[in-house]
Amino acid sequence: MKMLQREITLEPKPRGFHLITGEVTSALDELSDFSLGLLHLLIRHTSASLTLNENASPDVRRDFRTWSDHAVPEEFGWTHTLEGPDDMPAHVKGSITGFDLTLPVKDGRLSLGTWQGVYLCEHRDHGGPRSLTATLWGEARD
Amino acid sequence: MKMLQREITLEPKPRGFHLITGEVTSALDELSDFSLGLLHLLIRHTSASLTLNENASPDVRRDFRTWSDHAVPEEFGWTHTLEGPDDMPAHVKGSITGFDLTLPVKDGRLSLGTWQGVYLCEHRDHGGPRSLTATLWGEARD
Amino acid sequence: MKMLQREITLEPKPRGFHLITGEVTSALDELSDFSLGLLHLLIRHTSASLTLNENASPDVRRDFRTWSDHAVPEEFGWTHTLEGPDDMPAHVKGSITGFDLTLPVKDGRLSLGTWQGVYLCEHRDHGGPRSLTATLWGEARD
Repeated sequence: MKMLQREITLEPKPRGFHLITGEVTSALDELSDFSLGLLHLLIRHTSASLTLNENASPDVRRDFRTWSDHAVPEEFGWTHTLEGPDDMPAHVKGSITGFDLTLPVKDGRLSLGTWQGVYLCEHRDHGGPRSLTATLWGEARD
Repeated sequence: MKMLQREITLEPKPRGFHLITGEVTSALDELSDFSLGLLHLLIRHTSASLTLNENASPDVRRDFRTWSDHAVPEEFGWTHTLEGPDDMPAHVKGSITGFDLTLPVKDGRLSLGTWQGVYLCEHRDHGGPRSLTATLWGEARD
Repeated sequence: MKMLQREITLEPKPRGFHLITGEVTSALDELSDFSLGLLHLLIRHTSASLTLNENASPDVRRDFRTWSDHAVPEEFGWTHTLEGPDDMPAHVKGSITGFDLTLPVKDGRLSLGTWQGVYLCEHRDHGGPRSLTATLWGEARD
């Protein structure tokens, strides 16, 4: 078994839910070296997060944002308000979906379900570029 | 260290929260080959998810469903409604608990807390059979 | 690659969200043996959970508790009430943030974002000491 680790920088995205499977895998040429393995992704922030979800319909990503803003509203009597009204809700939203994902790798590619894609959940209005640490481990291809 | 990966198909379940620790481990004879390791499970869908929770009382699983239907209701002004009223809430519920779990393995068995079990969270009314990818890695037993 | 596994016992904490990065890493001298790797943490309970979040402001942790008690209230018509009014909400809150985390290790240390810390989410009024299983794997340092 072998392991490698590298940083990936995601382009800035507007607040909302974004499909980033292609952006992540195109930054990981080394995927093709693994016959069998796992990919771990950590987003190195506390106001943007990662999840899996439906990879086809933009409606799904829009509805996610609507629900998320409803479940964790900006008007809530927050005490941590120094960094703006979108900051504290962003921290809570981040912990709901979570900051790390582990995904199977098979035959040199991510092995997800047919309808699954990786989402960047950008909870800030101006979050800027986001950094991921990607760790790959498993069996090398011949 | 060694690693292996295999698919597991879960029997169809009604909408709700279901204890599947036994169904998963009985499909993984290879667990007994590991003295020390980890088991990663990915559910390959976006409308059913995985979590750990209490393994004894059916009341807990019923209360989970009540809370889940309350927190992510079918009546919500969703725009993604093509696949029925239970579909978009299922996507959101899925991302709340998450689609993958990593669990310790010790002495040839899953090593969970006394009261912990693996839950399948079936968010659709008629979700059908569900596929998991299980990846096991660690040290082999003598 | 090598792997090791050990138990960590956390000191009892009051209900709320607590930064435990230091408590965890100081129990894991072996971190310094890894040039590259991952740390997996499982909390072996169903009424306390783990997440990452902001490591600087106590306000953030207080606001987390406020939101959490609001989103999963004690008054909710729960049927599982045998273990007290804080028990069933604790199970649901636990599954929202989740019970396991996987974190990158680099140059003998946890490699988190600048503002990230590990949180113990203690959902019970008197949860007592909490047990974690820590699994470390990766490449050894020279």
